[in-house]
Amino acid sequence: MSKFWSPFVKDLVPYVPGEQPKLTKLVKLNTNENPYGPSPKALAAMQAELNDNLRLYPDPNSDVLKQAVAKYYGVDAGKVFLGNGSDEVLAHIFHGLFQHDLPLLFPDISYSFYPVYCGLYGIQSDPVPLDEQFQIRVVDYAKPNGGIIFPNPNAPTGCVLALDAVEQILKASPDSVVVVDEAYIDFGGETAISLVDRYPNLLVTQTLSKSRSLAGLRVGLAVGHPDLIEALERVKNSFNSYPLDRLAIVGAAAAFEDREYFEKTCQLVIDSRNQVVAQFEAKGFEVLPSAANFIFARHPKHDAAGLAAKLREQGVIVRHFKQERIAQFLRISIGTPEQNQALVDGLGDI
Amino acid sequence: MSKFWSPFVKDLVPYVPGEQPKLTKLVKLNTNENPYGPSPKALAAMQAELNDNLRLYPDPNSDVLKQAVAKYYGVDAGKVFLGNGSDEVLAHIFHGLFQHDLPLLFPDISYSFYPVYCGLYGIQSDPVPLDEQFQIRVVDYAKPNGGIIFPNPNAPTGCVLALDAVEQILKASPDSVVVVDEAYIDFGGETAISLVDRYPNLLVTQTLSKSRSLAGLRVGLAVGHPDLIEALERVKNSFNSYPLDRLAIVGAAAAFEDREYFEKTCQLVIDSRNQVVAQFEAKGFEVLPSAANFIFARHPKHDAAGLAAKLREQGVIVRHFKQERIAQFLRISIGTPEQNQALVDGLGDI
Repeated sequence: MSKFWSPFVKDLVPYVPGEQPKLTKLVKLNTNENPYGPSPKALAAMQAELNDNLRLYPDPNSDVLKQAVAKYYGVDAGKVFLGNGSDEVLAHIFHGLFQHDLPLLFPDISYSFYPVYCGLYGIQSDPVPLDEQFQIRVVDYAKPNGGIIFPNPNAPTGCVLALDAVEQILKASPDSVVVVDEAYIDFGGETAISLVDRYPNLLVTQTLSKSRSLAGLRVGLAVGHPDLIEALERVKNSFNSYPLDRLAIVGAAAAFEDREYFEKTCQLVIDSRNQVVAQFEAKGFEVLPSAANFIFARHPKHDAAGLAAKLREQGVIVRHFKQERIAQFLRISIGTPEQNQALVDGLGDI
Repeated sequence: MSKFWSPFVKDLVPYVPGEQPKLTKLVKLNTNENPYGPSPKALAAMQAELNDNLRLYPDPNSDVLKQAVAKYYGVDAGKVFLGNGSDEVLAHIFHGLFQHDLPLLFPDISYSFYPVYCGLYGIQSDPVPLDEQFQIRVVDYAKPNGGIIFPNPNAPTGCVLALDAVEQILKASPDSVVVVDEAYIDFGGETAISLVDRYPNLLVTQTLSKSRSLAGLRVGLAVGHPDLIEALERVKNSFNSYPLDRLAIVGAAAAFEDREYFEKTCQLVIDSRNQVVAQFEAKGFEVLPSAANFIFARHPKHDAAGLAAKLREQGVIVRHFKQERIAQFLRISIGTPEQNQALVDGLGDI
């Protein structure tokens, strides 16, 4: 450790994102990107913004995008917060809303960035084990806490919680902020944004990196009570006035406005997922019920690391987490029908 | 304050950026943007990247851009750190390198985001007064400290420190990180990047928002010893894996590669600045010596707030800081010759 570092830095264990290989021939099913490109209207909006005006700062409040999100969900724009990817939104949430005396609760098998944020901001946490079927058990969260966060659908399991179960968690912890991280909600879950008006402790986060095919643009959002949004705006405006660039603002807004393309591409992914699940089950895999754009699967007779290596040899990349309880699972993004076929073919006769 | 907030949030006093008016008819000389558009090669590079690949995450390390910066400055790419605007780079510096027992030193008249970062991360600071001529006095920084940061040229004064003066500050505090914030260096100063190999405590930050005309794209950088860069990478990778989007990476890299356009537009701004300074002095203004793309000026007979209001009525926006010692100054960005003429005309016969 350098003497120049702030003391906490030496203990930081950063998040490790999925590989972004520079070879383009690979079938990339490891980071849950959308196999379909963004809305042509989003590309057109960015095209129109690609000019000398890039010399000017963006709107620090990204009002155009806040209004597009607000309109899409039928909420007031004052309930919308935006960030440079949902990872930045989550970072500000951990910083601005989760530093309390009691520990933060999240599932033991979940988005692996959560414990990283805890390290960054010195937040105590108390991971809550998923049950034997890798499901969130609502009653386990009904205990004193300084905040609750879980992905819905959960990652990397893909399992979804019904809205009434989410509501039970909210009701049991009225004095804590409950964050529902809906990165994958559009592929089979029901958003909790409809509950925001009734629960001042609810914050819903979403990303444009999955269902809206804009991982390369870095846009995320949160929807919740204005008191929660104000904390996030204060943190954001003490960190970086302009987190969204001019192209991202108009591209993301246009993506929200193009509901038809969005619904069509989501349905294509869902249809492909159903087909991949059937093919995997036919090969003897156990596949957890997925409401996401990926599946989480294990084979009773084949080691997960070995399968991942075998697929890699065939030019197919999937994600394998070396983590207790899930070391025998693979997380596999849903691709185009051609990519999915390459995946199934790559497994061979097992 | 909401019971849901982390305790520090209630005391946050966020940074207030210059106004970004939605009316396009205004002559906007308030946020030090470049009057000329970005390099046509930067626009072309972004154009080529504006396609379905936006569905994919960017390179989390932005290697293409690191290499372009490294090549431009003749340093190793391992000495380059990138962020979503230099404001994000500065935030990570305050978090990862300035949390020490002794107070941080910066000029009393300086970039007003510095005290905001201190509030965000709980850092003690000890502002060092500029001298009577609004200059940084090197000897004032030769005292025990937990870090030093200053803009060079300073903002909002525009006054530049020579490289040997920067070196004196570095030598006097070998056990502290010294950050030279070079947002405006290309308009008349000498970068301290040439000192990075000799001073492991030196970190130089720059932005593409000023001399490279890409404020709308949000790209900033730091250059320093790999030990300092490692602290920033750890913080960054615990905060947001992909702070730069795909368009920003290629656009910024192309801007660094187009040295000819960069030098030409910088020179145009410098020439205009010299002309504006002469016109202001002819009207009786005192103008601090500027090495930036703005001037900082006061008139012995006219109130600064009154002048700003008068200019606003003529459709010209300049920046007025309601801060002790500089309340009678205006900070005015250098525009195109036409914009500068509108500015001078707007002042009328004073």
